[in-house]
Amino acid sequence: MDAVYHNQNSFESSLDTAGKVITCKAAVAWGPGQPLVIQDVRVAPPQKMEVRLKVLFTSICHTDLSAWKGENEAQRAYPRILGHEAAGIVESVGEGVEGIKKGDHVVPIFQGECGTCMCCKNQKTNLCQKFGVNPLKSVMVNDGKTRFSTKDGSPIFHFLNTSTFSEYTVIDSACAVRIDPKAPLEKMSLLSCGVSTGVGAAWNVADVQPGSSVAIFGLGAVGLAVAEGARVRGASKIIGVDINPAKFTKGKAVGITDFINPRDLEVSVHEKIVAITEGGVDCSFECAGNLEVLREAFLSTHMGWGLTVLLGIHPSPKLLPLHPMELFDGRQIVGSVFGGFKGKTQLPKLAQQCMCGTLNLDEFITHELPFHKINEAFQLLLNGKSLRCLLHL
Amino acid sequence: MDAVYHNQNSFESSLDTAGKVITCKAAVAWGPGQPLVIQDVRVAPPQKMEVRLKVLFTSICHTDLSAWKGENEAQRAYPRILGHEAAGIVESVGEGVEGIKKGDHVVPIFQGECGTCMCCKNQKTNLCQKFGVNPLKSVMVNDGKTRFSTKDGSPIFHFLNTSTFSEYTVIDSACAVRIDPKAPLEKMSLLSCGVSTGVGAAWNVADVQPGSSVAIFGLGAVGLAVAEGARVRGASKIIGVDINPAKFTKGKAVGITDFINPRDLEVSVHEKIVAITEGGVDCSFECAGNLEVLREAFLSTHMGWGLTVLLGIHPSPKLLPLHPMELFDGRQIVGSVFGGFKGKTQLPKLAQQCMCGTLNLDEFITHELPFHKINEAFQLLLNGKSLRCLLHL
Ligand SMILES: [Zn+2]
Ligand SMILES: [Zn+2]
Ligand SMILES: [Zn+2]
Ligand SMILES: [Zn+2]
Repeated sequence: MDAVYHNQNSFESSLDTAGKVITCKAAVAWGPGQPLVIQDVRVAPPQKMEVRLKVLFTSICHTDLSAWKGENEAQRAYPRILGHEAAGIVESVGEGVEGIKKGDHVVPIFQGECGTCMCCKNQKTNLCQKFGVNPLKSVMVNDGKTRFSTKDGSPIFHFLNTSTFSEYTVIDSACAVRIDPKAPLEKMSLLSCGVSTGVGAAWNVADVQPGSSVAIFGLGAVGLAVAEGARVRGASKIIGVDINPAKFTKGKAVGITDFINPRDLEVSVHEKIVAITEGGVDCSFECAGNLEVLREAFLSTHMGWGLTVLLGIHPSPKLLPLHPMELFDGRQIVGSVFGGFKGKTQLPKLAQQCMCGTLNLDEFITHELPFHKINEAFQLLLNGKSLRCLLHL
Repeated sequence: MDAVYHNQNSFESSLDTAGKVITCKAAVAWGPGQPLVIQDVRVAPPQKMEVRLKVLFTSICHTDLSAWKGENEAQRAYPRILGHEAAGIVESVGEGVEGIKKGDHVVPIFQGECGTCMCCKNQKTNLCQKFGVNPLKSVMVNDGKTRFSTKDGSPIFHFLNTSTFSEYTVIDSACAVRIDPKAPLEKMSLLSCGVSTGVGAAWNVADVQPGSSVAIFGLGAVGLAVAEGARVRGASKIIGVDINPAKFTKGKAVGITDFINPRDLEVSVHEKIVAITEGGVDCSFECAGNLEVLREAFLSTHMGWGLTVLLGIHPSPKLLPLHPMELFDGRQIVGSVFGGFKGKTQLPKLAQQCMCGTLNLDEFITHELPFHKINEAFQLLLNGKSLRCLLHL
């Protein structure tokens, strides 16, 4: 019963794991900034409306880094299994789950879609009141308990509705998106967070128009995904802003037309952008999580209709660096979670768009490593060396 | 040549004033907070693309009060002719003016529409880059000079592209809206600022939907105009918030369904609103110019799709009292000038909607006085006794 099922080929033989506890390898965070420990964990069977997933690929996003470092004390919970970008195959489903069955290919989403709350029923938002992002949440919604435990039975906490740094994980079915089994699973992992967040910000939130101009502040995976989204939509000017000149090469590959390194300028970034765009871009995207950058992003848009989409995480307690009267210039700012995608409803189509080449994900996976080298992958991201390092489980 | 033409009947005999200086009565501000002085002023003929208007009705708005008090030192300019809500008849037009001629009924607008700048050509905004609101501007755009002067020839400054506290005024044709001569001019004065600002915020900016819920913070003329706009659109719940209980009677007449006096509550206003609206209103309107109120207005909308429209003037140098992460709850805030109306394009239709009774302006004019009692009218507004006091010239 404590057998470990950790490769795809063994899947057929795992028929009898349904309803049983699975013991498998996971990367467990035991304290702020401590290296993750690859160890055996027990994964309980999925309860009502839950899905147990065999994770095949996972990658690391900045939100994992932040939780790992324990930057926000209120959000600390150890031991914990982090990770929210992944793709896998359903091992078993709990009572009442419809539309997802054993063997389905699934992308987990940290921003769920229950389908029945007031937000899920409203076309204007992709937030979900039951399975929204809540970094304070460390247990299952169903019963307030964990599905993970150590060998001696003490609980291991969940993270962002997903906890994908484990060979098996249990997620709410509201957070499991069934995708075409022909879609390449290793790339689908990107749709779990970074790429969907960026592409969706360009498509759903800013609704980038053909011939329009765009400025992207911060060229990590999310920023580059915004560029890819803007390129697909036919934006004619896609300005990338980053203090790391190494990001510029990659940027060109996803359609960035102009680069600005703030350190090379004698004027502010927004003055430069206003000068090269007849008064400012149509929309800007803040992917840096920095308040000064946010203000530059805001001022770099055109008066009257400029839209700034906030994507970066701002842990500082400081308020928005904008004066109320500045809103009368017609510039808007809006926050975006998961690119405005209603995950279960819209991600299957996004997966199709990747398969047919509309959206090109080739540039995003810069490294690949076996799962047990996860701490190496953390360092690559920390040092700005990788966009995404795909971990193979 | 210095004859005074100050009543409508004398209009026929004024045929020969075109191209000449007109001497007439105006209410001149000579210093911060000093009573306006009714005195003779000289009004030069309209220059290229300008219109000289015989003002028949004018009223006072809070922006006039603020300029009169000289609250913002940078905006002080004396002597000055204030006033921006009015209606009148064209006395003569300058070179190149098309679509407006002598005898036309006109509503002046402080937020002009030149028709040719990038903003005017963009359907997403009603701002105008050439004739936008700029409280620092005190001269004509054409030549940087004033059209008003004292008897001894020293300049008297303009205000908000309009300066309507004068029997005659000169405005840019971009700021003159020709309306149906059958429209009741005394009510059309309201379309110059307050009513358009409020109704337009509900229609153009928030796009209030039938059956939706709305909260309005501050029940002055603008706030009540928002209510009227929301009523016309079929909002099912229109909550009015004001610390002056006297405003509540008037509010009922324009469709307000629920009243909240913050002083009667033991919880915050947004908690109360969330409690009575299944999680918050669809949109809120800040018409108080107070940052604490702004935050309450923001938090009183529903997560996911709530929109707060900023209408109040915030002279405080303090920043928006919102944390960037709060934008991730899907609430938006947007500023609105002149209710999002492109004045020359859209106001004629608004005038029609008043004529046919779609929009009811009966409640807004609470007092009427002859022009020379303008200081009395200032006091009525200052003391919260009047919504609009119509001054007859
Ligand atoms: Zn992420
Ligand atoms: Zn939901
Ligand atoms: Zn006004
Ligand atoms: Zn214009």
